[in-house]
Amino acid sequence: MKIQGQPHRSIEADLTHRTARIVDQTFLPHRVEWRTLQTMEEAAEAIQVMRVRGAPLIGATAAYGLFFALRDDASDANLQRAYDTLYATRPTAINLRWALDRVRRMVEPLAESARADAAWEEALTICEEDVKTNHAIGHHGLELFREILAKKADPSSTLNVMTHCNAGWLACVDWGTAISPIYQAHDAGMKVHVWVSETRPRGQGASLTAWELREHGVPHTLIVDNEAGHLLQRGLVDVCIVGTDRVTAHGDVANKIGTYLKALAAHAHEVPFYVALPVSTIDWTIQDGIRDIPIEQRSGREVTHMPGLTEEGIRQEVLITPAGTQARNDGFDVTPGRLVTKLVTEHGAFDANAEALQKLSGMI
Amino acid sequence: MKIQGQPHRSIEADLTHRTARIVDQTFLPHRVEWRTLQTMEEAAEAIQVMRVRGAPLIGATAAYGLFFALRDDASDANLQRAYDTLYATRPTAINLRWALDRVRRMVEPLAESARADAAWEEALTICEEDVKTNHAIGHHGLELFREILAKKADPSSTLNVMTHCNAGWLACVDWGTAISPIYQAHDAGMKVHVWVSETRPRGQGASLTAWELREHGVPHTLIVDNEAGHLLQRGLVDVCIVGTDRVTAHGDVANKIGTYLKALAAHAHEVPFYVALPVSTIDWTIQDGIRDIPIEQRSGREVTHMPGLTEEGIRQEVLITPAGTQARNDGFDVTPGRLVTKLVTEHGAFDANAEALQKLSGMI
Repeated sequence: MKIQGQPHRSIEADLTHRTARIVDQTFLPHRVEWRTLQTMEEAAEAIQVMRVRGAPLIGATAAYGLFFALRDDASDANLQRAYDTLYATRPTAINLRWALDRVRRMVEPLAESARADAAWEEALTICEEDVKTNHAIGHHGLELFREILAKKADPSSTLNVMTHCNAGWLACVDWGTAISPIYQAHDAGMKVHVWVSETRPRGQGASLTAWELREHGVPHTLIVDNEAGHLLQRGLVDVCIVGTDRVTAHGDVANKIGTYLKALAAHAHEVPFYVALPVSTIDWTIQDGIRDIPIEQRSGREVTHMPGLTEEGIRQEVLITPAGTQARNDGFDVTPGRLVTKLVTEHGAFDANAEALQKLSGMI
Repeated sequence: MKIQGQPHRSIEADLTHRTARIVDQTFLPHRVEWRTLQTMEEAAEAIQVMRVRGAPLIGATAAYGLFFALRDDASDANLQRAYDTLYATRPTAINLRWALDRVRRMVEPLAESARADAAWEEALTICEEDVKTNHAIGHHGLELFREILAKKADPSSTLNVMTHCNAGWLACVDWGTAISPIYQAHDAGMKVHVWVSETRPRGQGASLTAWELREHGVPHTLIVDNEAGHLLQRGLVDVCIVGTDRVTAHGDVANKIGTYLKALAAHAHEVPFYVALPVSTIDWTIQDGIRDIPIEQRSGREVTHMPGLTEEGIRQEVLITPAGTQARNDGFDVTPGRLVTKLVTEHGAFDANAEALQKLSGMI
């Protein structure tokens, strides 16, 4: 999508040097800082410290990471080492494993001399497919938006969409998952307004989603995460849509911490709660999300300290608690499928249950 | 309660000079800064900019404010002017009106020369009663905690209590409402651990509740507001208890924004959700909280900017969103009585419905 009017992707391949350029998301929203990745270690570090984040983008970055490793040393041992290093960067997002497996499956049967080229091509393909997939997700999501708008007392009024975290183009290669239908609605002339929840502790809503929507010109209002229940109760939200890091074969959804509270509130007020995802986010090997999805435990410092920009334009981190306060910081929570109205994929919208996902699995 | 081992109240009368000393809560948790109030305008400003906050403490401060006004000019006109100014500082907390009405009722029949003395005595009485009331709330809350602990698989294990915002002694004159039973449980030797939700946007949990509990030595862990659903889902919370700014005659509860999401999640997981309050917080004139309780709209700047302490120990405010981002900032939300397990008052615990509150009204 656009940065200051110019189209960009969150990760851009340099075909000449075979490197990958990323928007370093730790500098957003205050500065657009591009960073070139050219080693496996740099790719792993970028995922680990969240210079890139969002399940699809993590997968794409990891694919480039495997290429960088194989370019230096295409042995089985190095392939395994790189796979393990990249796999260990973030535990919850299933797309990471999906992308790594896909590249590994592609290169393993090949002679060592052919592996790097194949990995490079596969990484490029993963990125191209991601763009198409997310565009298709947006198309199907837009249809659902149109249905909801048609049912409103005044169908020419604004559609109020609530989202959480960042499932926009910065979380993917382009378009985004949950934000893709919002971009397509806006581009198609639908009056759409987005409630952007800030998404503590790391503030991906406040820093990334608000920035994306602003750059693209989509009307939006920032709220603290605590506002979600109030807005739903007052009828100010027509539809919720979020992304996900892993969906089980029974339709349970892991997503950024706080998603579950929004899903409960949407359910209480009978507001549709959609989860947008590429089918690569479905982990067909597990059923019960609460039991089986590993939840990343992150540093308490993300809760006790807040980075931002001073009036003088200097990046500064401030302590917002008594010194020495202990904090618990789960990166994700699990929303049971029964609270999810539809899973919106590149193949269309599906109920979040075993039967519907069984059908979907037959289509791919 | 204690600050560095010394007992204190959040507002302390100077009997010689007839002034009131407050802990300026805008400096917490980084510095304990006392501030002397000696004019009505200073009292109003302290409430308005939240140097003091919390429904009971707002009421107490407003009572001193009326005294300051009457000391300078005890005319009916000045009484009305001071009443109106103080009443306009914050719209949601009913204790503000309750305290102002109480002082006005006391002084109105008196000769002008007697009004200031009477107002001073009444302000002192309101404060003393607040301490006793909150101690009684804590006593009744502790009984409920004991019942919950007795039902746990291992009754010698730790009781995990979740709270929201600050309903501790800093929100009252002493003890607190929701935190009073926690202090009493801790002092009685019960193993109690508190999940303190940070309470964006102003972070009263992170800055005030965490500070209070730390000073008093009560084990606690800070969480972002988004964590509440996850912890409840995983069985890590035995009981929720919060304060309130206004309760309707039918048991609907206005409290800090985000309370409603926690109540929905507690209900979904069948975890008791208590609301602690002095009966002065009940607004007997209204029934439907969603329709009838005014919700304070606060500045979006509280969402987009975050104050804290730099590594060098300097207080600094940082921008955490793209410059110019618009934010909506409702100060409170309303939790319907059906989600409230009990209202815990100085007269005991009551169901949050019209019938039970009718009985309570007969007791006062």
